[in-house]
Amino acid sequence: MAEFGKIVVFGTGLIGGSFALALKAVGAVEEVVGFGRTPATLRAAQELGVIDRAGINPAHEVGDADLVLIATPVAQMPEIFERILPYLGPETVVTDAGSTKQDVVAAARAALGERIAQFVPAHPIAGAEHSGPGAARFDLYQGKKVVVTPLDENGDETLDRVKRAWALCGADIYELSPAQHDQVFAAVSHLPHLLSFALVHDLAVREDSETYFTFAASGFRDFTRIAASHPEMWRDICLANREALLEELDRYSRVLGTLRDALVDADSNALEVFFGTARRARRAWAESQ
Amino acid sequence: MAEFGKIVVFGTGLIGGSFALALKAVGAVEEVVGFGRTPATLRAAQELGVIDRAGINPAHEVGDADLVLIATPVAQMPEIFERILPYLGPETVVTDAGSTKQDVVAAARAALGERIAQFVPAHPIAGAEHSGPGAARFDLYQGKKVVVTPLDENGDETLDRVKRAWALCGADIYELSPAQHDQVFAAVSHLPHLLSFALVHDLAVREDSETYFTFAASGFRDFTRIAASHPEMWRDICLANREALLEELDRYSRVLGTLRDALVDADSNALEVFFGTARRARRAWAESQ
Repeated sequence: MAEFGKIVVFGTGLIGGSFALALKAVGAVEEVVGFGRTPATLRAAQELGVIDRAGINPAHEVGDADLVLIATPVAQMPEIFERILPYLGPETVVTDAGSTKQDVVAAARAALGERIAQFVPAHPIAGAEHSGPGAARFDLYQGKKVVVTPLDENGDETLDRVKRAWALCGADIYELSPAQHDQVFAAVSHLPHLLSFALVHDLAVREDSETYFTFAASGFRDFTRIAASHPEMWRDICLANREALLEELDRYSRVLGTLRDALVDADSNALEVFFGTARRARRAWAESQ
Repeated sequence: MAEFGKIVVFGTGLIGGSFALALKAVGAVEEVVGFGRTPATLRAAQELGVIDRAGINPAHEVGDADLVLIATPVAQMPEIFERILPYLGPETVVTDAGSTKQDVVAAARAALGERIAQFVPAHPIAGAEHSGPGAARFDLYQGKKVVVTPLDENGDETLDRVKRAWALCGADIYELSPAQHDQVFAAVSHLPHLLSFALVHDLAVREDSETYFTFAASGFRDFTRIAASHPEMWRDICLANREALLEELDRYSRVLGTLRDALVDADSNALEVFFGTARRARRAWAESQ
């Protein structure tokens, strides 16, 4: 018998679809039911074997599910929490895959009320250039990190079910509080995206932008790869994690101020020490990956 | 008969060595003589076939050279200009491969005086992770850009000799004024390096830096690849192009201020439009490459 009976996935694209394929690949689930915004996407997901069938009414699917994964954009989650609440079974565990956690937790608390203990927030750290069910891969999470941000209300068994599902996908499981999560990701993900968007935008709006882009080379290419990210998704992430992001942005601006002073003073030593510290840290990080 | 008789290269590492190998590969040079700071490097360059022999005294090598390439760090160039000046033949053309141009031009003018017409500044846009003669490749410049920044004093024949050499290496030749060059590269190369160093430095000096680095993923990896660049080299570039870099840094800080306002106001539309403009520009650039 498979470890999981029925799993319900809201959002059958890259993130939710890869989760389903990974569990199917190791025989860990009996049935995957998918919900999505368009019939076309659900049909594609079914044809690709990502889901076994498309769900029509949550009333018929959620009650006997072992696990419900909400893998939609964060903005759609409040409505989904409300839609599934009346049908949650006593043993159903709900989790999500959102890039921000405090806002999802707030939405879950508002919608689920006393059933909040059944919700375990999580964030799989795996993205890719592509999206949709066609981009889903059974090995997307192999060796990737999944951050689970448990709530005080979560029982051990509830928490373990979510961790176990991600472990079966091949992921390494980490725990942070929702607030820690948002602070860390503001610094290592959200701020770099903002900075990359800012650089490209600043070049794009110049009258002679073509001259600048002509001479942009490999350093620019890598630095700005994330500036091709999805505008709506990043608008939502920035707003959802606004407070932590503003803190990081202000901190970063102060660092730029320090560098500016070193440049104005032509402080050769300060620049070399600064760059050297960064280089050593970057190399140590790369070696640890 | 080869198009070039003798070529003298100061600095036989990645940049100078690849130039020599490229011209040898197409049979465009009869003899390459190398100068370098250490006998060991010159020996390696000779053993690898990058140079035909090591030069000992510029007095014996420069006078009958068709082309002298100075491919050393910019900081060493003033001294090299002074060393070669007494021995320049009437037909010898000198060029360089420095990442900044106004400072090299100033050093060349100060050292060469009336012979400045024989110096054509240039900047091949090709770097790599590795350095030294062992990193030199005959195809490094294939399809790469070389920016030539002619001086008013350069005659057509002088200028053409430098362009022709780089074209024989497989490069595409562009022309900018030295000031234009430095402004463009401050924006598309020097500033991104500064920003990338700044982000990594800011994480590295935190007490809990390990937590941050643990969750850094692929976006961070690309954004910070250039933060592993050579500290001394980038210290020199930043100082050499200090004025243009400060201008770009201040401009960028104003852009971050605009983004900050949009975040503070939770201006969803402004963020989406901003990110969308950046994404379109980044995609158009990527497609043009």
